[in-house]
Amino acid sequence: MFPKALDYESLNENVKKAQYAVRGELYLRASELQKEGKKIIFTNVGNPHALGQKPLTFPRQVVALCQAPFLLDDPNVGLLFPADAIARAKHYLTLNTGGLGAYSDSRGIPGIRKEVAEFIEKRDGYPSDPELIFLTDGASKGVMQILNIIIRGEGDGVLVPVPQYPLYSAAISLFGGSLVPYFLEETANWGLDINNLRHSVAEARSKGITVRAMVIINPGNPTGQCLSVANLREILKFCYQENLALLGDEVYQQNIYQDERPFISAKKVLMDMGPPISKELHLVSFHTVSKGYWGECGQRGGYFEMTNIPPKTVDEIYKVASISLSPNVPAQIFMGMMVNPPKPGDISYDHFVRESKGIIESLRRRARIMTDGFNSCRNVVCNFTEGAMYSFPQIRLPPRAIEAAKRAGKVPDVLYCLKLLEATGISTVPGSGFGQKEGVFHLRTTILPAEEDMPGIMASFKKFNDEFMEQYEDYRGYSRM
Amino acid sequence: MFPKALDYESLNENVKKAQYAVRGELYLRASELQKEGKKIIFTNVGNPHALGQKPLTFPRQVVALCQAPFLLDDPNVGLLFPADAIARAKHYLTLNTGGLGAYSDSRGIPGIRKEVAEFIEKRDGYPSDPELIFLTDGASKGVMQILNIIIRGEGDGVLVPVPQYPLYSAAISLFGGSLVPYFLEETANWGLDINNLRHSVAEARSKGITVRAMVIINPGNPTGQCLSVANLREILKFCYQENLALLGDEVYQQNIYQDERPFISAKKVLMDMGPPISKELHLVSFHTVSKGYWGECGQRGGYFEMTNIPPKTVDEIYKVASISLSPNVPAQIFMGMMVNPPKPGDISYDHFVRESKGIIESLRRRARIMTDGFNSCRNVVCNFTEGAMYSFPQIRLPPRAIEAAKRAGKVPDVLYCLKLLEATGISTVPGSGFGQKEGVFHLRTTILPAEEDMPGIMASFKKFNDEFMEQYEDYRGYSRM
Ligand SMILES: Cc1ncc(COP(=O)(O)O)c(C=O)c1O
Ligand SMILES: Cc1ncc(COP(=O)(O)O)c(C=O)c1O
Repeated sequence: MFPKALDYESLNENVKKAQYAVRGELYLRASELQKEGKKIIFTNVGNPHALGQKPLTFPRQVVALCQAPFLLDDPNVGLLFPADAIARAKHYLTLNTGGLGAYSDSRGIPGIRKEVAEFIEKRDGYPSDPELIFLTDGASKGVMQILNIIIRGEGDGVLVPVPQYPLYSAAISLFGGSLVPYFLEETANWGLDINNLRHSVAEARSKGITVRAMVIINPGNPTGQCLSVANLREILKFCYQENLALLGDEVYQQNIYQDERPFISAKKVLMDMGPPISKELHLVSFHTVSKGYWGECGQRGGYFEMTNIPPKTVDEIYKVASISLSPNVPAQIFMGMMVNPPKPGDISYDHFVRESKGIIESLRRRARIMTDGFNSCRNVVCNFTEGAMYSFPQIRLPPRAIEAAKRAGKVPDVLYCLKLLEATGISTVPGSGFGQKEGVFHLRTTILPAEEDMPGIMASFKKFNDEFMEQYEDYRGYSRM
Repeated sequence: MFPKALDYESLNENVKKAQYAVRGELYLRASELQKEGKKIIFTNVGNPHALGQKPLTFPRQVVALCQAPFLLDDPNVGLLFPADAIARAKHYLTLNTGGLGAYSDSRGIPGIRKEVAEFIEKRDGYPSDPELIFLTDGASKGVMQILNIIIRGEGDGVLVPVPQYPLYSAAISLFGGSLVPYFLEETANWGLDINNLRHSVAEARSKGITVRAMVIINPGNPTGQCLSVANLREILKFCYQENLALLGDEVYQQNIYQDERPFISAKKVLMDMGPPISKELHLVSFHTVSKGYWGECGQRGGYFEMTNIPPKTVDEIYKVASISLSPNVPAQIFMGMMVNPPKPGDISYDHFVRESKGIIESLRRRARIMTDGFNSCRNVVCNFTEGAMYSFPQIRLPPRAIEAAKRAGKVPDVLYCLKLLEATGISTVPGSGFGQKEGVFHLRTTILPAEEDMPGIMASFKKFNDEFMEQYEDYRGYSRM
């Protein structure tokens, strides 16, 4: 009997090739253990609310009112909602005929795209056009739309940092393209060296690959590094010279934990460079409501802004967006509030600032606790988390641990992370899921567990790690493996 | 200078080939006219709330509370929300750690998939497994995920009804597959004739295409027809014999406007047929919160259920779903309530029933008004809308109207619909966007305008149509074209 359409043998090979480690073997095992009753600390995904971060009050009030517009006519509404939330809900309800239950324009509600454009203008000091901003169901969907439109087949390459967030490798596989890796320098605080880039492009070309675009993640996931202006200029110039579109993943722009390198957008640096590059380079920049002090991952809201993209291409992207009708409307409203939060003088302003500052300052302290914790462990070295939500320590596995993994048919860092999970309940992602240099091993964890739990988690990690290292470095332990 | 990555010339050809008429030329022109201040009646998309349908109160109360969980601790909450909505909100908040702001499992929240499985079990009288149900951002996303995993390239064909909802043609183009059309019989109330199917498969095979799957839309969009049990059995048998997976688009299962053919799911008919087919045929069934009496299009909630799909394939679909992390959580909660609405005895039950019955009964009357209205027009014939949300009248264009369209470089029904739009503000979709037999023309409109507006809209349509026909049939009118 020959295979049926949905038998594994006959599935689309590009689907099978795609890898997505963040929800891979480690995550599945963690879910199993949880079902068996074990307490799991899920640090595998940047999912702040799942680890206890409270949502910001004002935006939740506004969206609740938009979901239940009949409350606006209730004389008691003022007992539960402040006047500025009520006013803002009314504002958003006028922007989409039919409210939250109606498909919006496939690019997102025009009035909210205008709010996004104003935010970008204020942030960068350069004009932004709402017609070149599309709202999406999370940044992930935007990234996938753009990669889909670029990739024509195996011969098309996209430069992706290593280590990288696996959305990129997975989507490139799914669309049948070729990932062209460029290595970030761990010893230079995960900096980007233009010579590595040149080398990667030359190597890809020698294999017949047309390199068409480059991805940067700034601040970096999993590395946490923040790109300097000088570095961004080099990257933009490189893309211009090599005729590459630049995809700027800037979802962590609010997550900055040092003062030397504040976030600066690729768009601003590009505009600062002036013509011809500022008028010609194809740039698409991505943002989300999932990160920052919002952490509204479950709402699935994002946007991308297109710079110098030809109108006919914008039309094609619009058409593709139309096939799935519209991004979800509630998250569009979250996006509106993210780019246009309460202002000084508004009733909710002080509370909003207190909440959002509290979150960012605590993340900054947690980044420090985590880095210091890792660096106090045997055979572990870790760069400071300058931004984003992750720590990416290098784990120097003893040769005998590597051999043991080989015997078990596992990638060495997968084995380490599985043992960590079983021993401590800490669910991480092995470095191999993000890419790393041959023979070097990492794990990724988020800095999101509650601040008060951090010391305990790091102590439990240290105990596991140091015993693991002892066991595999200690000759007498050999038989115990 | 050679083209850049995002220049139109260098985009993915599959993207360029995809067509999506529902938001095509007519929609764009309607949006322009609206900007210029003209009153537009948007009947191009099945978007009930945009045309004034009110959301059901109970689910909106529950989701509002889930968005603002701090209200649950407010002593005044009972002034604005009934106790059963409060209890239900608490229930859903326990199902996803971190609430609406946290990514859920990529397949959707397990507790809600369980509610869906129970709904299906009750509906069909056969077991349903929550592990084989995935929640999605609208049915559209589910359909795209499944087509993506099936289609390996141009040589893979998918049987799609003509006329069809253009999600299917667009997605098949996007994934680089081949659409294999089968014609529905307008003169037989848009019924499906198995001989047409056989003919289509044979023709595709003679061109070297491997036909891998078949799509049915039941109730039909744009045709409104409801498949009989006998017809469904024939289809299932055909798919089994021909080794095809069946994709059952059942998003309109609650939208039924006649009593002869109530909705019956492909899954139930399959199970009724017994082994071997009931244990072997690959079936995926789709549903949504966008339709029925819910009409919650903007929330983007859907599910698909897989029957007889091998576990390794389910794993692959899970992996692909993981790449975009999770479907939006608020819409998952809408889905939970759709499959598990208030029960007799619940505080909100009577009100919920009144609201939902009111909507369906009004739609039934509107279906009748519209069909009768079209059939009273010169050169227009229209089958009754048995189900779904659309009317799909055939417009018998006079030869001279067809010639005039050719001179204007337009497809004839596009010209007709554009003129209708300019004259009346009624925004429809030309039949060519859904597929139709050579030389036969239609338009699609929804039955969604408010019931009290219906007579006026149909009168304005009749006036336009009859004048149009007069002009193009009347010899003396020739020079006026
Ligand atoms: C670098 C990066 N880009 C994009 C995303 C996607 O986020 P979302 O789809 O929730 O907006 C993530 C999520 O973790 C991320 O880390
Ligand atoms: C036949 C059919 N399938 C699927 C959909 C998609 O609906 P949604 O993505 O909103 O669930 C529609 C929407 O109109 C439809 O008509």
